Amino acid sequence: MRSIGVFDSGIGGLTVLRSLAEKFPHENFIYLGDTARLPYGSKSPATIANYTKQNLSWLAKQNCKALVIACNSASSHFHEKEFQGLPVLTVIEPGCQKALQVSSSKVIGVLGTRATILSQSYKTMLNHLDPSAVVFSQACPLFVPLAEEGWDQDPITNLIVYRYVQALKNNPGTENMDTVILGCTHYPLLKGSIQKALGPSIHLIESGEIISETLLKTIKNDIVSQGSREISIVTTDESDHFQKLALQFLNPHVPSSFSTVDL
Amino acid sequence: MRSIGVFDSGIGGLTVLRSLAEKFPHENFIYLGDTARLPYGSKSPATIANYTKQNLSWLAKQNCKALVIACNSASSHFHEKEFQGLPVLTVIEPGCQKALQVSSSKVIGVLGTRATILSQSYKTMLNHLDPSAVVFSQACPLFVPLAEEGWDQDPITNLIVYRYVQALKNNPGTENMDTVILGCTHYPLLKGSIQKALGPSIHLIESGEIISETLLKTIKNDIVSQGSREISIVTTDESDHFQKLALQFLNPHVPSSFSTVDL
Repeated sequence: MRSIGVFDSGIGGLTVLRSLAEKFPHENFIYLGDTARLPYGSKSPATIANYTKQNLSWLAKQNCKALVIACNSASSHFHEKEFQGLPVLTVIEPGCQKALQVSSSKVIGVLGTRATILSQSYKTMLNHLDPSAVVFSQACPLFVPLAEEGWDQDPITNLIVYRYVQALKNNPGTENMDTVILGCTHYPLLKGSIQKALGPSIHLIESGEIISETLLKTIKNDIVSQGSREISIVTTDESDHFQKLALQFLNPHVPSSFSTVDL
Repeated sequence: MRSIGVFDSGIGGLTVLRSLAEKFPHENFIYLGDTARLPYGSKSPATIANYTKQNLSWLAKQNCKALVIACNSASSHFHEKEFQGLPVLTVIEPGCQKALQVSSSKVIGVLGTRATILSQSYKTMLNHLDPSAVVFSQACPLFVPLAEEGWDQDPITNLIVYRYVQALKNNPGTENMDTVILGCTHYPLLKGSIQKALGPSIHLIESGEIISETLLKTIKNDIVSQGSREISIVTTDESDHFQKLALQFLNPHVPSSFSTVDL
């Protein structure tokens, strides 16, 4: 049985895997976390493109039927729709398409890591798809460690989320903002706090959900509809901490195995 | 005029440079931040040792009279006292010696990044120096991003510091703890909050201060006592954000120049 391959530089992409595991309850998954070489965000475009190809090659060899790049930095440097004949889905373009679809005002906010915000990859893609879209961005460097600490239902997290959301809203012109993109795969873990701070009228766009919808169309003739399945997690470096976090990020889904590989 | 060379994987070592710049107001400094290859904490011992030698070699070529490894990960994998005939100071051993010197109870706390705490480098060194010392450790993953956000005089930071300090104090046996090592070069930026949460009776050990004292003894016959000086900052990757943070970390000292190098 062919798998769906997913990779990220680290652990964040597991929130995308969680959405996929939800949407495709009988599919096998292989998740590759390139933990030995993270973070990608601070590396050069050529290096990121090179690592991305290595990761896709490795996944392609594991008999995958579709490949998902669940990493913002890798997604911004991969522009093809296929790799070795397999369909490839990235996190940036589908999220931007969805945001433009659900937004009435076309005033869109983006929350992300400092590297993602500085790269302007969301803003560039949004304006490429709709030159009239107005985009406001806010780097939220505390969100990744908060998510990794598991402080997602926590008054401290609410305070920090509120502060970053206020910084976003302090930009003149955000009064009509009706859609906000979670531009980092860690952020769905803090979704409750973020929605609360933004208010209930704002649409939140989460990569995992959008990729699941897109993948459904992409592999519609090749979906497994019954039987048990495996979720294999492979990292390029060993880490007990990664395994603990993985259980938390994937919850309620449970990985079938953890292993390491030297790419 | 020969310089004092300092390196870290990133920006944290600038708090050590700040202490040194304070103690040696007429010395030239060269700071090398290996930002292209950070973080070191998650890399293998062999890779860290290799990067450390490359960084020391580069600094030695810049006509330095002493070398400071202001990086916890690099310090745990470098055990010599000299490199190419130049004295080398690291952050771990002097901090542990000082902690044992000032502690009456020999019950010592260590705060650090997850990588540093997992490596047990402080605990191992403390027990190597004094097998009877009792060591309690606490990983504080939020501290680095809090310091980098500049939220050092902030109620949110106080709350987070308090939570980690409570987690440390919740260990049975910490009642007699009288000394706590700041086991990460970012943490001196949060020293005020940490001291408040620990209470005024706890000795806080900060690498930069200890290294300054040690260096004073090491180069005592070769200290420049007059004239203006230069603080050159060199990184292995370009970053405007690094430059902004550097001004904040070094404050009130001001770098003379920023440049990049390919090691």
